[in-house]
Amino acid sequence: MRKIAESTVRRLSLYLRFLEEFEAKGIATVSSGEVARRGGTTSAQVRKDLSLFGSFGKRGMGYSVPELTRAVRDILGLGRPYVVAVVGAGNVGSALARYSGFASRGFHVRWVYDQDPGKVGLSWDGLRVRDVENLESDLADHPPDIVVVATPEGAAQGVADRLVTLGVKAFLNFAPVQLAVPEDVMVKNVNMAIELETLSYALRHR
Amino acid sequence: MRKIAESTVRRLSLYLRFLEEFEAKGIATVSSGEVARRGGTTSAQVRKDLSLFGSFGKRGMGYSVPELTRAVRDILGLGRPYVVAVVGAGNVGSALARYSGFASRGFHVRWVYDQDPGKVGLSWDGLRVRDVENLESDLADHPPDIVVVATPEGAAQGVADRLVTLGVKAFLNFAPVQLAVPEDVMVKNVNMAIELETLSYALRHR
Repeated sequence: MRKIAESTVRRLSLYLRFLEEFEAKGIATVSSGEVARRGGTTSAQVRKDLSLFGSFGKRGMGYSVPELTRAVRDILGLGRPYVVAVVGAGNVGSALARYSGFASRGFHVRWVYDQDPGKVGLSWDGLRVRDVENLESDLADHPPDIVVVATPEGAAQGVADRLVTLGVKAFLNFAPVQLAVPEDVMVKNVNMAIELETLSYALRHR
Repeated sequence: MRKIAESTVRRLSLYLRFLEEFEAKGIATVSSGEVARRGGTTSAQVRKDLSLFGSFGKRGMGYSVPELTRAVRDILGLGRPYVVAVVGAGNVGSALARYSGFASRGFHVRWVYDQDPGKVGLSWDGLRVRDVENLESDLADHPPDIVVVATPEGAAQGVADRLVTLGVKAFLNFAPVQLAVPEDVMVKNVNMAIELETLSYALRHR
């Protein structure tokens, strides 16, 4: 399969949101124009994005909502569950570990770690915070599919190194630091400071 | 000033992180190559990004860390404080409202709102959760610079509409919905589902 731009993947993820809404309302078919309007894009863009992955819908008939929903879920790799570990049980880690939206999309937080003795042992919705010392003993046999790094800046790289050694291939990183990882490991950075500063930049240069 | 790509602004925000680290270590000058290495980019890219905003550094001498830090902060609009309101006091809103990294960068959360009587009146680090009914009476005279929308999906657009009417021009939106706003209002979307799905997509298509 040819290399797909991340912007395309992000749009597909958004289309899936809309398709699930349509499905929940019992709508049987949608046109590319209806998906586009919902997402602030054009019907040509929707058709182009989908055409990268196959042939969907019939000319003039629109797309079958259940079929396209299933196809986009499959394209996005959502046809299977993912085991997620969260490292760092501060405000961000805690919010993420408890966020029900994860599980409903197949991302199951099974592990939460911290190094603070005041947090280790706490139970969040049935999930017990474990000492980060246990990373290796807990995870060596079955490394999680995705690790959310929500540690302070100074701890993030060390944690990532240990998890890479255990075989983790995907990180969602909230620590304000660029993680150095091998080429076959993916890191998605979520940095609130950057999001806020794109807003302050825009307010400054209006 | 010519239109600057958002990707450039995001890199400047990242450079600022590194410059602040250098400054904290007492480093007086840096080369574009040192900034680039820290951020996983090239020195040509660093020079190009900075040159969009003026002439910094002396050929062969590198950049003065304090001067460049101040200049980038100013470019990013960080030369002034911003008043922030958070609407939605669930897990995400709570983590954001308490996140100390905001205030240290000049983003001051002054208001938190919810509609749940069980949350209204709670105090978070001295900040009291107020009833969302009070939006207009609280904010009409001095609308916040930036509003973080952390409500459930169904409530987000209604809240945004009320705040736009009050004169709010910038939103950081965590609700999984595309907010419809007038053209002079900015919305930055942070959608954890999309971040996770770019990872699941990549795991699926490795």
